[in-house]
Amino acid sequence: MTFNYTRTIRFQDTDAAGVVYFANVLAMCHEAYEQSLAASGINLKVFFSNSSVAIPIVHASVDFFRPMFCGDEIFIKLMCKYLSSETFEVAYQFVVADKIVAKAITRHVCIDAVSRSRKEFSAEIVRWLREWGEQGKLI
Amino acid sequence: MTFNYTRTIRFQDTDAAGVVYFANVLAMCHEAYEQSLAASGINLKVFFSNSSVAIPIVHASVDFFRPMFCGDEIFIKLMCKYLSSETFEVAYQFVVADKIVAKAITRHVCIDAVSRSRKEFSAEIVRWLREWGEQGKLI
Amino acid sequence: MTFNYTRTIRFQDTDAAGVVYFANVLAMCHEAYEQSLAASGINLKVFFSNSSVAIPIVHASVDFFRPMFCGDEIFIKLMCKYLSSETFEVAYQFVVADKIVAKAITRHVCIDAVSRSRKEFSAEIVRWLREWGEQGKLI
Amino acid sequence: MTFNYTRTIRFQDTDAAGVVYFANVLAMCHEAYEQSLAASGINLKVFFSNSSVAIPIVHASVDFFRPMFCGDEIFIKLMCKYLSSETFEVAYQFVVADKIVAKAITRHVCIDAVSRSRKEFSAEIVRWLREWGEQGKLI
Repeated sequence: MTFNYTRTIRFQDTDAAGVVYFANVLAMCHEAYEQSLAASGINLKVFFSNSSVAIPIVHASVDFFRPMFCGDEIFIKLMCKYLSSETFEVAYQFVVADKIVAKAITRHVCIDAVSRSRKEFSAEIVRWLREWGEQGKLI
Repeated sequence: MTFNYTRTIRFQDTDAAGVVYFANVLAMCHEAYEQSLAASGINLKVFFSNSSVAIPIVHASVDFFRPMFCGDEIFIKLMCKYLSSETFEVAYQFVVADKIVAKAITRHVCIDAVSRSRKEFSAEIVRWLREWGEQGKLI
Repeated sequence: MTFNYTRTIRFQDTDAAGVVYFANVLAMCHEAYEQSLAASGINLKVFFSNSSVAIPIVHASVDFFRPMFCGDEIFIKLMCKYLSSETFEVAYQFVVADKIVAKAITRHVCIDAVSRSRKEFSAEIVRWLREWGEQGKLI
Repeated sequence: MTFNYTRTIRFQDTDAAGVVYFANVLAMCHEAYEQSLAASGINLKVFFSNSSVAIPIVHASVDFFRPMFCGDEIFIKLMCKYLSSETFEVAYQFVVADKIVAKAITRHVCIDAVSRSRKEFSAEIVRWLREWGEQGKLI
């Protein structure tokens, strides 16, 4: 199933070229990711301040098709994909006025926050992957 | 009348101390301000890319009472105050779980975007000031 | 003594009005503060990830006199002021091409990071206060 | 030739996991890019507020190998690559204490800022590409 997140482009998101600063698009991806975690019942405060487990991003990529302006209403479609027992990917599609304006991917690895060695996902992440993934298919 | 804006604290808003980075609180104030403009029917894209008129912030201050954490749901109460035909102030109160966690003020001056000399507010700003102000009283 | 920090305005610092986004000025203040700590021999990594002591900002204010543009070379003059055994203020002056473009103040309180109760400054902070303060006089 | 840019990790760059927030690494790439433009004699203020030509990023990707902490001194090695008369790529390598901590790429397309149709690079961009490129070889 696809998770949908709506977001208004803020003045802060823009730069002197009058459009969204490129790196801020990845920050919006992370917002959608956080919201999808919350939608699966995951407590964000606990999840992101966990001192034993972390799921850092090891890779991100983004393609820009059209500029986004302050005030634009963007619809972010998120879909996750299980890669292994410690790795997943999240794909994001940004839509404004029925046109795809950007696409992005983030790859995450579950690690022990202290030793930084790989660690299997918790049950709640497995549940989240089942909820917002679709038979190994990305957007 | 008070304008109310709800916002979830995002991972990006935090710093290595585990709480919201201080300057990001002012960015959230501006988000609430933008949302209040939109609620009064102002087109944000036109408003913030206007090449003839600008309403830059000339002063801002903020007081922090309690830390804000990733995942916290914050309620921002915004109230504006007419100071002169080219100046207004906006007051913001941040509430988490019924406790005031921060207060802030921004002061704005209307100028000609090219000459940067003062200029009277447009009719839509006067309407916005009437809608979200309260007889010259700040929060 | 005044601590001096030089910084080029980056594209990311700007917004769609073509000038520096107001809240980013406070982030630049913090950069200058960090650099002044490092100049006094304080290890920033240890200082900002200290799990027992924290010195959060409880108040900040900023005044803007002129716009700052991408590429501008800014000179930030920092001076700190001892207020009590757990409180200090830092004053910042932003200068571009010999003109003051902004002024800011941050107030910090030393606390126990767990209980969040007040705590006296460490010896290294006292030394930093002596180095960059001037007989209780702010800029 | 490789362009080298040094940058201290700031508190603002970090998140509640205690390390640099992933999207901020791309913002640091852009800082290095801006500095390389300035090093070739390009006026950043004119370049980034040019109302007729723009060189937006159409693609970015980043790989993270090790975490970066507040206070870390990072060395960014930048190299650009000519792809066509309107397209170039920039590759970035992040090094901390002689270890590669991240790698990134940004792809840029030169366009007419109004019509948003493709446009050939100006002479100054061609000069910059010659200065920081190396026979079509990326890092």
